[in-house]
Amino acid sequence: MPAGRVATVAPVPEDGATGKVAEVYADIRRTKGLDRVPNFWRVLATHPDHLELVWGRLKALMHPEAVGRTPKLDPLTREAIALAVSATNGCAYCVNSHTAALLKLGADPETVGEVLAVASLFNSTNALADGYQVEPDILPPG
Amino acid sequence: MPAGRVATVAPVPEDGATGKVAEVYADIRRTKGLDRVPNFWRVLATHPDHLELVWGRLKALMHPEAVGRTPKLDPLTREAIALAVSATNGCAYCVNSHTAALLKLGADPETVGEVLAVASLFNSTNALADGYQVEPDILPPG
Amino acid sequence: MPAGRVATVAPVPEDGATGKVAEVYADIRRTKGLDRVPNFWRVLATHPDHLELVWGRLKALMHPEAVGRTPKLDPLTREAIALAVSATNGCAYCVNSHTAALLKLGADPETVGEVLAVASLFNSTNALADGYQVEPDILPPG
Amino acid sequence: MPAGRVATVAPVPEDGATGKVAEVYADIRRTKGLDRVPNFWRVLATHPDHLELVWGRLKALMHPEAVGRTPKLDPLTREAIALAVSATNGCAYCVNSHTAALLKLGADPETVGEVLAVASLFNSTNALADGYQVEPDILPPG
Amino acid sequence: MPAGRVATVAPVPEDGATGKVAEVYADIRRTKGLDRVPNFWRVLATHPDHLELVWGRLKALMHPEAVGRTPKLDPLTREAIALAVSATNGCAYCVNSHTAALLKLGADPETVGEVLAVASLFNSTNALADGYQVEPDILPPG
Amino acid sequence: MPAGRVATVAPVPEDGATGKVAEVYADIRRTKGLDRVPNFWRVLATHPDHLELVWGRLKALMHPEAVGRTPKLDPLTREAIALAVSATNGCAYCVNSHTAALLKLGADPETVGEVLAVASLFNSTNALADGYQVEPDILPPG
Repeated sequence: MPAGRVATVAPVPEDGATGKVAEVYADIRRTKGLDRVPNFWRVLATHPDHLELVWGRLKALMHPEAVGRTPKLDPLTREAIALAVSATNGCAYCVNSHTAALLKLGADPETVGEVLAVASLFNSTNALADGYQVEPDILPPG
Repeated sequence: MPAGRVATVAPVPEDGATGKVAEVYADIRRTKGLDRVPNFWRVLATHPDHLELVWGRLKALMHPEAVGRTPKLDPLTREAIALAVSATNGCAYCVNSHTAALLKLGADPETVGEVLAVASLFNSTNALADGYQVEPDILPPG
Repeated sequence: MPAGRVATVAPVPEDGATGKVAEVYADIRRTKGLDRVPNFWRVLATHPDHLELVWGRLKALMHPEAVGRTPKLDPLTREAIALAVSATNGCAYCVNSHTAALLKLGADPETVGEVLAVASLFNSTNALADGYQVEPDILPPG
Repeated sequence: MPAGRVATVAPVPEDGATGKVAEVYADIRRTKGLDRVPNFWRVLATHPDHLELVWGRLKALMHPEAVGRTPKLDPLTREAIALAVSATNGCAYCVNSHTAALLKLGADPETVGEVLAVASLFNSTNALADGYQVEPDILPPG
Repeated sequence: MPAGRVATVAPVPEDGATGKVAEVYADIRRTKGLDRVPNFWRVLATHPDHLELVWGRLKALMHPEAVGRTPKLDPLTREAIALAVSATNGCAYCVNSHTAALLKLGADPETVGEVLAVASLFNSTNALADGYQVEPDILPPG
Repeated sequence: MPAGRVATVAPVPEDGATGKVAEVYADIRRTKGLDRVPNFWRVLATHPDHLELVWGRLKALMHPEAVGRTPKLDPLTREAIALAVSATNGCAYCVNSHTAALLKLGADPETVGEVLAVASLFNSTNALADGYQVEPDILPPG
């Protein structure tokens, strides 16, 4: 009987984490206000340096207040982009995660639907513009 | 010497358009407030029914006020999603077009940069979540 | 134990549908000759305007006789394209759905295999042409 | 001033080809009825074994009569799939090449447009089915 | 209750294989040193000519010693590329298969992580270079 | 006449760079041993915080010796993965850049060809495994 999706490496459990991994886990819980470290980070923890690099970049872009940065986009727009990209790439984990994040930010299902409507519209026009090799009508800057 | 990108079909010129194509061209100019119909639509016009279908969907989603629909997302968020999807798919025409649209809506280059920063971050995490086959930690609805 | 794929929003059940959703559901059952509305449409129904837009475009392209349009491609070629695109994008729902549609049109498993053989061949050559940045040898139109 | 696309390796010219490369070049010209070997193959020729592998597979699938194989799909359907995949991947060389092949087989621009219309429709629905993680409604075989 | 992933066609069992399929199955077991033919090949076997074409190409590139070819890349690098491409495309079967192959070649989980770290980094920069349409700074050959 | 690819934002010139941008530019030249900062980084510099984040991650993964990290993969394997991912995504800038990097590391054109041969093979098998929805034959870890 076919099983569902299982990570290809064994995640690092929270109570077994030490050193750099334990520090990043604590920062993820604190910054995101979560009780539990999501599976994504627990799998990345099998390569501690990489865990730290990815978390550092995501924290700076998605939790700018935590690093004292003034963002150019509001949280809902950022999560809308995340969901649009994840739908385009067909990433199951990411679609689940960013839909949950959008709902947590107060989006209703119809707003989630509009994000996907716009994303799917442009997946469609992208294939047309590339499929016809349409010549740009925009002039270069300067 | 290598030439640049040229459409694979001959676009329908504005002064040669008749019937359904002429009507859609007029609606595009009116709805978007443009003097000239962009290349994308002039290439689609080689298949008039398809031109009408794509324009109808884009108009409803990207110009909701023109069809009396109350949108769930503001114009800048919609264009941000459009640019994020186009960058993910690597569509040159679309990247040019949606960057221009974002700038026209008042976004500065740093805001364009933040849209691309968030989009590129999630292209990265999508590859990781899929590359490790991370098991979702989100429960299904209901 | 890991569960399978579950939609991120609760689908709109057929017996609970009203207004625009009920109309589109009826049109889907009638046009496709189905007893039951597929999951895809029941999930889209959480955003009724979008349901109508997507169904309208799919109906016009995939059921042209229902809108009085003379198609340029036969039904098997249209479903072959649908499967080829879905395999390229790795969309599980769509692969299942379009394979079923091909078999329903009378294709045998070897024909399904040939569609995938051709699609996979060109996914391969696409990566080569892009990976070497091969210069086009085709002259522009006109 | 920006230049166009140029291959990243120097193509093997036809008059300089020897051994396996000369044999494959001759087979390409003969099988495809061309005077000149397209750029794609001349770039692949920098790795002669790979040239032979790719040409062998493409010949068997796209020129089945040349290898005595009875195909399951007609030439126009095969090229339609090739264009649909190339548009989905945004491969410029391939879009140019397969559009030219479709026109050479007798397709008119509106037929090319319908191939792209169907391909772009399913790029759109793929993003929706993946973006909502729609559960398959198709039963497994057997 | 949602089921997992099941092939859309019925695989050809090993004890039911005859002719070309039986020959390829035997070659796969011998070349790869396996007791059992993986599901991928058993599904491809529903189209015997295609099975032979794909296996021939994979054997030549991934088992060059079996065809007397001197490879330019070592086995671990080849599997690293395979995993990187599969993660980029989000192919679940392929990610499982190539991760297992890497581990069998002696890679530890941290090495698998570094392959994915590099692959995900460049999925990110690809979106940026395309998203900004950065002009190449590399001169053409010759 | 169609022009080639031009960045959608004006790059920050090296002699106009100050503060964080000037520091990153200097680090790029020093770490990579270059006289000139590549266009990619000069475009990213329009969003200085993002420039720093992307450079920090790329430096740690692709120039590990510069940060005192012991890598799990050698430089040629890392660049092979970069080229394979860029070919898969069809990113022109990235293909040019990583091919140049491979050649600088001593790879000959046939080795570049073998990287692309392996990458294109797995783009092909990915489409097949997804196109048939092949069930994994690999057991989960533990």
